[in-house]
Amino acid sequence: MDLKDLFLKTRTCRRFDESHKVGMETLENLVDFARLSSSGGNRQPLKYLLFNTPAQCEKIFPFLAWAGYFTEWPGPEKGERPSSYIIILGDKSITDNFGVDHGIAAHSILLGAVNEGLGGCMIASIKREELCNELKIPDKYEVLLILAIGKTIEKVTIDEIKNDDVKYWRDEQGVHHVPKRSLKELILRL
Amino acid sequence: MDLKDLFLKTRTCRRFDESHKVGMETLENLVDFARLSSSGGNRQPLKYLLFNTPAQCEKIFPFLAWAGYFTEWPGPEKGERPSSYIIILGDKSITDNFGVDHGIAAHSILLGAVNEGLGGCMIASIKREELCNELKIPDKYEVLLILAIGKTIEKVTIDEIKNDDVKYWRDEQGVHHVPKRSLKELILRL
Repeated sequence: MDLKDLFLKTRTCRRFDESHKVGMETLENLVDFARLSSSGGNRQPLKYLLFNTPAQCEKIFPFLAWAGYFTEWPGPEKGERPSSYIIILGDKSITDNFGVDHGIAAHSILLGAVNEGLGGCMIASIKREELCNELKIPDKYEVLLILAIGKTIEKVTIDEIKNDDVKYWRDEQGVHHVPKRSLKELILRL
Repeated sequence: MDLKDLFLKTRTCRRFDESHKVGMETLENLVDFARLSSSGGNRQPLKYLLFNTPAQCEKIFPFLAWAGYFTEWPGPEKGERPSSYIIILGDKSITDNFGVDHGIAAHSILLGAVNEGLGGCMIASIKREELCNELKIPDKYEVLLILAIGKTIEKVTIDEIKNDDVKYWRDEQGVHHVPKRSLKELILRL
């Protein structure tokens, strides 16, 4: 796949065909993309937890918040939830400063997922303490980000931004619209 | 290019053919990869400064620290310095919290650069105040990361990590070795 096409296709998706199983080997391959990516000072302090069974996914779902701008939407309904998760942990025995490593890693995983015909979403809004209790995640790890991954059923389009309004929205056909700033706005001339 | 190959090839490089000019259009295309990538809450608070003339690059170079583990190495010598830079700024008029957006953006740019036959390095160790003075960067922007980009002349290999030693090193042939943790070490089983 052309790299630009891959970037165009790599959109945040929040609704999935929950019946589509994501294999453990697929998840491991996605972590390998993260493993091969940059890490501040090459410390590589991130660890990963992989989940792909319905029972595991059902356990994780209640601790996640979905689509901050959709205040009326409690997240994907049953049947449209992700069929796998990757939890990105920071290993505090290596460093207390994870810099932007987890952003780099999550982005790698998402690009890899889309390249495999899957899709997903980076989630930072997490009930961390409750999740750690439920999954018995040891204290030495900090939950940094969670990736929801599955076969997406959502149509997402990029729109030109209007009136500086960055809020994504969903139209009557259920298409998810994401306003993006133009290249011209992003590149400064001093 | 196969995505896994691209990730394998996307290594941090610090020595370049300085005579190789990187076009402004190329830099703009690289920023477009960042533009198309995820941003927390879709806020898109990053801005970019692009530099590709010898005079501009000479101005920026003294404010950067290179390869923290090479305490004896002052960075690439003349002729082997990057021929372009992208400075990633956080626009504080949009938010004060850039999250991991700049990691995601820098990673996108680096992948795009390697896909174009170039290479580079994310630099976080920056004399920020002096650089802002020199370039007259307005106060509303925070310097988050700098990408050095050019035609790389460095050979970089990934090694298996030994004795938990993450320090990269350079052998007698000038090959740069980067110890990477194994997938087995990164994936936890609770």
